[in-house]
Amino acid sequence: MASVDVGVALLGYGTVGASVNRLLVESADEIERATGHRLRIVRALVRDADKERSFAAADGVLTTDFAAVRDDPSIRVVAEVMGGLDPAGGYVRELLRAGKSVVTANKQLVAREGADLFAIASEAGVQLRFEASVCAAIPVVKVLRESLVVTNVHRVLGIVNGTTNFILSRMEQGGSYAEALAEAQQLGYAEADPTDDVNGADAAAKMAILATVAFGSRVALSDVDMRGITEIEPAHVVAAADLGMVVRLVGIASLLDGKVDVRVQPAFVERSHPLAAVDGAFNAVMLQGDAIREITLEGPGAGGIETASAVVADLVSVVGTAGTGFLQNDACWRELDKLPDGEWRSPFYVHLDVVDRPGVLAHAASRFAAHEVSIAQLVQRVEDGQAALELVLHTAPLGAVKAALVEIAALPEVLGPPFVAPVLSERPL
Amino acid sequence: MASVDVGVALLGYGTVGASVNRLLVESADEIERATGHRLRIVRALVRDADKERSFAAADGVLTTDFAAVRDDPSIRVVAEVMGGLDPAGGYVRELLRAGKSVVTANKQLVAREGADLFAIASEAGVQLRFEASVCAAIPVVKVLRESLVVTNVHRVLGIVNGTTNFILSRMEQGGSYAEALAEAQQLGYAEADPTDDVNGADAAAKMAILATVAFGSRVALSDVDMRGITEIEPAHVVAAADLGMVVRLVGIASLLDGKVDVRVQPAFVERSHPLAAVDGAFNAVMLQGDAIREITLEGPGAGGIETASAVVADLVSVVGTAGTGFLQNDACWRELDKLPDGEWRSPFYVHLDVVDRPGVLAHAASRFAAHEVSIAQLVQRVEDGQAALELVLHTAPLGAVKAALVEIAALPEVLGPPFVAPVLSERPL
Repeated sequence: MASVDVGVALLGYGTVGASVNRLLVESADEIERATGHRLRIVRALVRDADKERSFAAADGVLTTDFAAVRDDPSIRVVAEVMGGLDPAGGYVRELLRAGKSVVTANKQLVAREGADLFAIASEAGVQLRFEASVCAAIPVVKVLRESLVVTNVHRVLGIVNGTTNFILSRMEQGGSYAEALAEAQQLGYAEADPTDDVNGADAAAKMAILATVAFGSRVALSDVDMRGITEIEPAHVVAAADLGMVVRLVGIASLLDGKVDVRVQPAFVERSHPLAAVDGAFNAVMLQGDAIREITLEGPGAGGIETASAVVADLVSVVGTAGTGFLQNDACWRELDKLPDGEWRSPFYVHLDVVDRPGVLAHAASRFAAHEVSIAQLVQRVEDGQAALELVLHTAPLGAVKAALVEIAALPEVLGPPFVAPVLSERPL
Repeated sequence: MASVDVGVALLGYGTVGASVNRLLVESADEIERATGHRLRIVRALVRDADKERSFAAADGVLTTDFAAVRDDPSIRVVAEVMGGLDPAGGYVRELLRAGKSVVTANKQLVAREGADLFAIASEAGVQLRFEASVCAAIPVVKVLRESLVVTNVHRVLGIVNGTTNFILSRMEQGGSYAEALAEAQQLGYAEADPTDDVNGADAAAKMAILATVAFGSRVALSDVDMRGITEIEPAHVVAAADLGMVVRLVGIASLLDGKVDVRVQPAFVERSHPLAAVDGAFNAVMLQGDAIREITLEGPGAGGIETASAVVADLVSVVGTAGTGFLQNDACWRELDKLPDGEWRSPFYVHLDVVDRPGVLAHAASRFAAHEVSIAQLVQRVEDGQAALELVLHTAPLGAVKAALVEIAALPEVLGPPFVAPVLSERPL
């Protein structure tokens, strides 16, 4: 299929905008393989064209003139990554009316003015996509709209604000709300003015968008019952722990007897509940429906490159669904070699049955050392006169581990073949 | 946009096939709203047209003659839900060559014969989709292909076999592999012949498909290094627990220095790792890439209706991406009322500061009882002469809980306003 050049414009060229440009440049081939189109940034609207940028735009791309975007016939789709309601809302309306599809990362705009914007897009026969407006790179809008179209989703549970999730997780290790907030600010998880995060407004905008998509009925931001975490005290966190629970800011959207309820509030979450395990600044959305029981999506809910990744996915969907897209059946476009088995690297667990005699450990350890495999953890057990060594090895090539184990298995003190399994760890091991 | 009738055929009309038909009938309006098309089953190939079915096909739909499917020009897309390599593979080839798009739930077919099938589809200019072949309703193929197209996914971790995940989870409560397998069979989580599950073959086929999509290079089933769980002994499970870990059958696909490694084996997984929390027969896939850090998708990895849901999502994608699809911007097609706040139901946690005096609890309890709110759990604390009551309430309407709390707050023994928060529980509470 012949490749077609598609002109793309950006409104805004900050962290997200520069990342969108970088992803489009670096992944031009992947996008062409997926859609048959080459996407190219031809204009980026900025306030100051001379400012230094993290990923420079090509010469002549930056402009301070909105009309240069709106009136350029080579631009088919525009990504709005400037944020705020004004002038972003007016720009998006003008672009849609001018026949350009728009992709936006602006949750406040979609949650507050979605009804009007979608009506304009529909009338103009163009697309308005908004994956990046909710939970950054987690593709929950696409999954709800395209994969779960027949599953009658009736409940959406979400941890959709990383700042509050970090603060509440942090309070479990002791300390007040104020201390946890200060630490979040220090680590960059909370803004200098954290109001919209801690009072629930950010989460409420996301839940309004998710409920709208899930239930097919407009939920405005003002429909969301909202309560933040500022009233949470250490005593609540301790009480939750005593009950085997954790305190989290949870969004709950329900469809009950044909009526909608959307709320954001601190909730007590059982430790065994999947949402209790959502780590620090991550987001998770749990979708419950008739045909699927529940599907949970978890990932980074914020960040420049993560948001840009969702913007680019929407750009790809716009060009990929208009005409010829996604007809490229085969996901294969290259032939990679298989990694030699021995070069695969992982931390490993090893179990050795050994005779209970001094020196066994030293012998085994020396064999690992000879192959440059280092030991992270060791447990020795003795039971009924038989001993076992249990080891966790630092990340090492499988070949080195196997070579060491062949020599260890040949030691007279080692009984039977060693048991080895890779270890999955969240820390580098 | 005018609605177009699209003829659909099924190969096979067992549990999955009947569920696909049911979802298409019951969700015809949703599908039309999303794609502008009405999908209708016009033929279903079966071995015995007179057999009783869970959801009956319309008169004249069931046929034992493959040519009646292949040669019917009204059929644009066919869902293959019969399973097995032969005759399914031959049928799919003939259909693709006849210009019909195919959606398949057949992981063994895709993992073993994918290269040939996709070449035929590409040559014929039709689509071959396979979301249902991996992890049922979890939309991991769509997410990898469409949402993460520019994220350079370099590692896929998966718990993609529910049977083994149930068995290994079960062994943590004590008991041997054989006992856990017997229980899995009794509960319907394992087949009478569990060979393909416990030796890793089922997981290996899924990981071959996922690695192929993630890395864009064909990974055949024979490329997967595979090891099952039959050798796992209670001692391994105990040793893992001592290390703060669990044993799980994990698929790991890695892209390392341009080379591919795909393996399925028992792994030791730290309890804090998201994959350790995957419950019983559920599946989870973790995708790690440059722009997204990691995104995890979790849900039911098997089941008739869950698989059918993925088949229908692929049917929707086929008709939705050919021409006019997904141009319906606005997700809203109805106007639902807001649920009155007081009618929202949940279990709740309540904290009351009270004076340390006999009878307080009885007074509070009687107020809850008067509003038909029942108490699931109660903790009483006394500190520095001040007492606190902490209660977990069974599921109740928020209005009843609030009404009771107004009366309780007015009791002379109660100090300050009560704190109330919903409880998220995995059990009905």
